[in-house]
Amino acid sequence: MAASAAISKTIYFGSFVHSKTLTELDICEKGAIGVDEEGVIRFVERDSEVENVLEKYGEWKDAKVVRIKGNGFFFPGFIDTHTHAPQHPNTGLFGKTTLLDWLQKYTFPMESSLSSLPLATRVYSNFVSRTLSHGTTTCAYYATIHVPTTNLLADICLARGQRALVGRVCMDSDLSPSTYRDASVDSAIASSKSSISYIRSIDPSGSIVRPIITPRFAPSCTPACLSALGALAAETDTFIQTHVSENASEIALVASLFPDSKSYTHVYSTANLLSPKTILAHAVHLSAPELALVKSAGAKISHCPASNTAITSGVAPIRSYLEQGLSVGLGTDVSGGFSPSILEECRQAIWASRFRAMNEGDEAKLSTEEVLYLATRGGADVVGLKGRVGGFEVGMEFDAQMVCLGAVEEGGCGDGLFEGAGGAVDVFGWEDMQERVEKWVYSGDDRNCAAVWVRGRLVHRRKGVEV
Amino acid sequence: MAASAAISKTIYFGSFVHSKTLTELDICEKGAIGVDEEGVIRFVERDSEVENVLEKYGEWKDAKVVRIKGNGFFFPGFIDTHTHAPQHPNTGLFGKTTLLDWLQKYTFPMESSLSSLPLATRVYSNFVSRTLSHGTTTCAYYATIHVPTTNLLADICLARGQRALVGRVCMDSDLSPSTYRDASVDSAIASSKSSISYIRSIDPSGSIVRPIITPRFAPSCTPACLSALGALAAETDTFIQTHVSENASEIALVASLFPDSKSYTHVYSTANLLSPKTILAHAVHLSAPELALVKSAGAKISHCPASNTAITSGVAPIRSYLEQGLSVGLGTDVSGGFSPSILEECRQAIWASRFRAMNEGDEAKLSTEEVLYLATRGGADVVGLKGRVGGFEVGMEFDAQMVCLGAVEEGGCGDGLFEGAGGAVDVFGWEDMQERVEKWVYSGDDRNCAAVWVRGRLVHRRKGVEV
Repeated sequence: MAASAAISKTIYFGSFVHSKTLTELDICEKGAIGVDEEGVIRFVERDSEVENVLEKYGEWKDAKVVRIKGNGFFFPGFIDTHTHAPQHPNTGLFGKTTLLDWLQKYTFPMESSLSSLPLATRVYSNFVSRTLSHGTTTCAYYATIHVPTTNLLADICLARGQRALVGRVCMDSDLSPSTYRDASVDSAIASSKSSISYIRSIDPSGSIVRPIITPRFAPSCTPACLSALGALAAETDTFIQTHVSENASEIALVASLFPDSKSYTHVYSTANLLSPKTILAHAVHLSAPELALVKSAGAKISHCPASNTAITSGVAPIRSYLEQGLSVGLGTDVSGGFSPSILEECRQAIWASRFRAMNEGDEAKLSTEEVLYLATRGGADVVGLKGRVGGFEVGMEFDAQMVCLGAVEEGGCGDGLFEGAGGAVDVFGWEDMQERVEKWVYSGDDRNCAAVWVRGRLVHRRKGVEV
Repeated sequence: MAASAAISKTIYFGSFVHSKTLTELDICEKGAIGVDEEGVIRFVERDSEVENVLEKYGEWKDAKVVRIKGNGFFFPGFIDTHTHAPQHPNTGLFGKTTLLDWLQKYTFPMESSLSSLPLATRVYSNFVSRTLSHGTTTCAYYATIHVPTTNLLADICLARGQRALVGRVCMDSDLSPSTYRDASVDSAIASSKSSISYIRSIDPSGSIVRPIITPRFAPSCTPACLSALGALAAETDTFIQTHVSENASEIALVASLFPDSKSYTHVYSTANLLSPKTILAHAVHLSAPELALVKSAGAKISHCPASNTAITSGVAPIRSYLEQGLSVGLGTDVSGGFSPSILEECRQAIWASRFRAMNEGDEAKLSTEEVLYLATRGGADVVGLKGRVGGFEVGMEFDAQMVCLGAVEEGGCGDGLFEGAGGAVDVFGWEDMQERVEKWVYSGDDRNCAAVWVRGRLVHRRKGVEV
């Protein structure tokens, strides 16, 4: 299952579902997707019998065949546009904190300990396994300030075949404890350069792992450090990720730390950190001038509703962002977020939008279709893979998950030994495909993610699943 | 595993956790709970070695012994104070509806079909299995208007050993389709009486199943029907459940249907439907006079945040209710709610309260401790079992779940076959008990509910679990 192993031409038979547009799902009940040895989709057939497909594509007669099981369907792999691998062991631990005290109490001590290679091996291997098991085929990871373990995270993603942007975190201001920060601007830049070089050396094409410049967030960095990182991004043509405008105290802190800046977003703009390759996490409380700046720079937004709700940051006005034409994806933001699952994040995006709707009216609501778009095609745009992944179209690469749903037996289920083999989703048999998709979105979990492919390569399957 | 089977005296060894007060958990790392043949807790020991316990309680030397496995702990069974068994197949289906159109589009057609005994057997067996698998030891169920299948639901609960309030739904107004409503007040009362008698006949002590009078909600009933149900409740000394003040259109509808009533809550008060045995679901938008009425009547509130968020009803001000001394439990409200899990409902209660906190300040937030209280002791008060279940104290009955959490192996986990045997919770080994509880609350699911007991009787265990 290593990312370097050869793959065979494969035809995926069965139902498939993907986003056609922001508001529309394309649901095909009887599909066939032909994927070549490079993982590229060569044909997509609809409403065709298996024998007709095999006849039409005679040169595929020796191709491997993968068939959907039971009530399932193929769905594009999820794209997680923002998460913190070293915070994985803190998942679910918030106590009564909000952002700034949460960082001090939980986050910095945990991240600091990830200088240890054995610990990082354990934590990062487990986390990559977790994200893959939830169907995440591409993930934008924050690591820590430590170069060796950041590089280890990239090694793990490459070995497991998960597409990743892997960022060594930069932070040189005294917001962070003295034991866990970059000693100087020069050392911060040298460390970042070193990690960028290493990651590019292990995957020169960048088709699986890519480096990403990662100033933690404005309060963690001196102005000199931010500017140097902006210059490094331009020099190395690298993606950039950071946080912006997450909660009120943080915004006030930025205003006090950068008194000459017009806004939080302007801090990044001044440092040349806003580009079409920039991923801004949260963006909960952006002002109109900040939004204009984001849009004119072509920067992207990672919406992290689970985190924003859990640490009471606020609810980002995603409807408004979409209407303004901004690019938006979803981010789990572990461990501000409490789950590594983008499916959970889809639900959280829906709930958060409904909270806004309670104040603002129904227009604020995000639909099932819209959150699935953000989780796939929207995310693809955020991480620079627009048109390459996120849908099933000829010429795109096959990043996909096989969703399987459980069927309720005739008798319901009799004894106390009930296990729910299909996970938490109950399909009674009369549901149409649209309803099956909705049941998956609202009740599904990793048990329904039977197998996962990246560029046509199998990168995860649940125990007992044959593909 | 039938509810009538004899049970043996049992000592439960291992960590246990339960609510001491609304704001405090009692966490005992090394406990022993002795439960007699009637399912009553006879002793609770703390920080005692097994041999010391066995020595101290010599007469228990032949008792069965159940030990916690791994990182787990015993926790009181959950109490679901409001759910709709016949809506289970619609779980996750909302489309773009809110309450009133959701009822017409999804709910009434599904409930109407539950007149069929074979279908009801399948749906209700599956749903009771589901709620048990999530650790729910007591559940207040709405059935449908149909007497035979309502009685079937009571039979299933009794056979499976789950404590239940089972309500035949009453509705005689023309809000409901002509094919799915009570034909007259007389027939509504006769049907309700018939179901009450049946349920009392199968469990005369009411220790497992009890009937509950269930006017669906004010708009579904004529004033004459509501009054007749109030009289029936007094005559039969029966619990009552209904909905109140869920969303704005519904409240406006009640005002138009009952123009002489001072408020929605007054409609019930006028019909003598408010008593200490009344469970009011939702109570999202109650006015101050309505709250005073609820409080003076001693009626209880079932908070259903998953449903209130999913169908955009609003967020009930639970902090304020608790400060006013109202009794509050949690309800899953399937299928307005999207999950039969009270653990999920705990999370939803936290998220909903945080949304209120974004507008009102931190005081609105419910803590982990508070939602666990609502899920157990709070719920016990709502369903008339205060002091009998919901905690581990001498003299209380043993309604409990064995929570097991997964451990992350040293190597993280190597290959693509990752399954996560312990479910979604990752315990690395350094977490203290408080943190394990938090990880369970924020990441746990039915996979962590290894076994469930009601009155000392095993009523559920996950496949592969030995107890």
